[in-house]
Amino acid sequence: MIRSVFFVSDGTGITAETLGHTLLTQFEQVSFQQMSLPFVNTDDKVEWAVQRINRAAESDGVKPLVFSTLIDSQLRTHLVKCNGVVFDFFETFTGAMEKELGVTAQRVAGRSHGMGNVRAYSERIDALHYAIQNDDGATTRDYPMADVVVMGVSRAGKTPTCMYLALTYGVRAANYPLADDDFERGSLPAVLEPYRHKLFGLTVDPERLHQIRKERRRDSRYASMEQCLMEVRAVERLFKRERIPFFNITQRSIEEISAQLMQQAGLTRRI
Amino acid sequence: MIRSVFFVSDGTGITAETLGHTLLTQFEQVSFQQMSLPFVNTDDKVEWAVQRINRAAESDGVKPLVFSTLIDSQLRTHLVKCNGVVFDFFETFTGAMEKELGVTAQRVAGRSHGMGNVRAYSERIDALHYAIQNDDGATTRDYPMADVVVMGVSRAGKTPTCMYLALTYGVRAANYPLADDDFERGSLPAVLEPYRHKLFGLTVDPERLHQIRKERRRDSRYASMEQCLMEVRAVERLFKRERIPFFNITQRSIEEISAQLMQQAGLTRRI
Repeated sequence: MIRSVFFVSDGTGITAETLGHTLLTQFEQVSFQQMSLPFVNTDDKVEWAVQRINRAAESDGVKPLVFSTLIDSQLRTHLVKCNGVVFDFFETFTGAMEKELGVTAQRVAGRSHGMGNVRAYSERIDALHYAIQNDDGATTRDYPMADVVVMGVSRAGKTPTCMYLALTYGVRAANYPLADDDFERGSLPAVLEPYRHKLFGLTVDPERLHQIRKERRRDSRYASMEQCLMEVRAVERLFKRERIPFFNITQRSIEEISAQLMQQAGLTRRI
Repeated sequence: MIRSVFFVSDGTGITAETLGHTLLTQFEQVSFQQMSLPFVNTDDKVEWAVQRINRAAESDGVKPLVFSTLIDSQLRTHLVKCNGVVFDFFETFTGAMEKELGVTAQRVAGRSHGMGNVRAYSERIDALHYAIQNDDGATTRDYPMADVVVMGVSRAGKTPTCMYLALTYGVRAANYPLADDDFERGSLPAVLEPYRHKLFGLTVDPERLHQIRKERRRDSRYASMEQCLMEVRAVERLFKRERIPFFNITQRSIEEISAQLMQQAGLTRRI
């Protein structure tokens, strides 16, 4: 049996999806058919959402789950008339918050993922452009502006981590690939010396690295188990000898790598 | 008066932060001091979190707000003994979900932003590498694999949008900058013709474009109000004539641009 799930929001739907997904992960024994309905900010659009939910209820034979972050009370009143089970994030917590804070919630739609303050927005965009310009050791000229310089072998998750750090935390992360030359020398590339306090390492199990590289370049020396094993050993030896903090990313998602790096490197979000 | 806020999680803290931030945006009249405590997954770490919360309570003279997504019931029981007001996300909704679904929640920590299924994880990473390799018109060779090709003038938000689409939705988005040559010709670059059905335009108010470009290259022709006005007019004329769907990104966040583009282009998430 399939259970329909709707994420209803007056904005992007990101909060409704994040919260809903988190709850759904605890019910893996159920098959969910998920649908996001963003920008539901007028009575007409709520009516359209209600009709979609009701049609799903009819064809499924069970009530859909509806995760809502609608803020406007008139729209909320309209939505709860649907033939689904509505989980109302805003209404659920706001009363207790108002009581504790002694003030009334402002009830303005679209704030949580809107422009917010312009400074925070620019920080993120600038951090993202920084990550792109400083991807894969393209240049070290702008390292004085880096919050962190992420090091590791090719395909150890450096690039996605740097992009995620920029978008989520506004942190400026450069990344620098380590390769054969560095392992033979056995010490830090001289160009990195001035930024020693900003360096952070990522490593990965050789088996996993082999698997990832094979998908890109099957039958290459680059992807061979032998090469992966050699590189991972060499890079971990280098991190230890040079006292560069590092951890192993195998089995970790981009979100987990980023949160772990923020914590272990002692970084604070810029936004 | 400052009110301390803690986001307590057994994983990355992303869900707790998302929920908390969304609620806090409705109380802009209050000054919040926010602190994320991720990876709180042992009794010792909960005790450490409780002590931090209690110290903040003492120094603030008011109870901190605590947004928790802890799943383990023993850890939760420990946390609620703190001297703060605990908003327990999991406990609040799980009972009603269990009742409606007729099954028991699995109560496994760290799932919502973990690796999840490996296929979904690879889709995101591949989409991100796709976006980087196809940034700023670098190549059109891989456009057959694109879900969407985002077009617009320089600094109209194309790059951050493509990165965000990759990380959040697993969508493969290339981006192609339009410039003087294209405006003079007044038609689509020939290289884009085969991908006409995948094209999507972003435009921006000339004043905002002028402001953004000035921050990069003050006193350049590129940043001049005259040039910005000309480019925006030309690009909008091109989008209309060629019937390329587009919208104006001024006053929209990356999240809003991405959600709007997904909806208007009829894209579905790959993850």
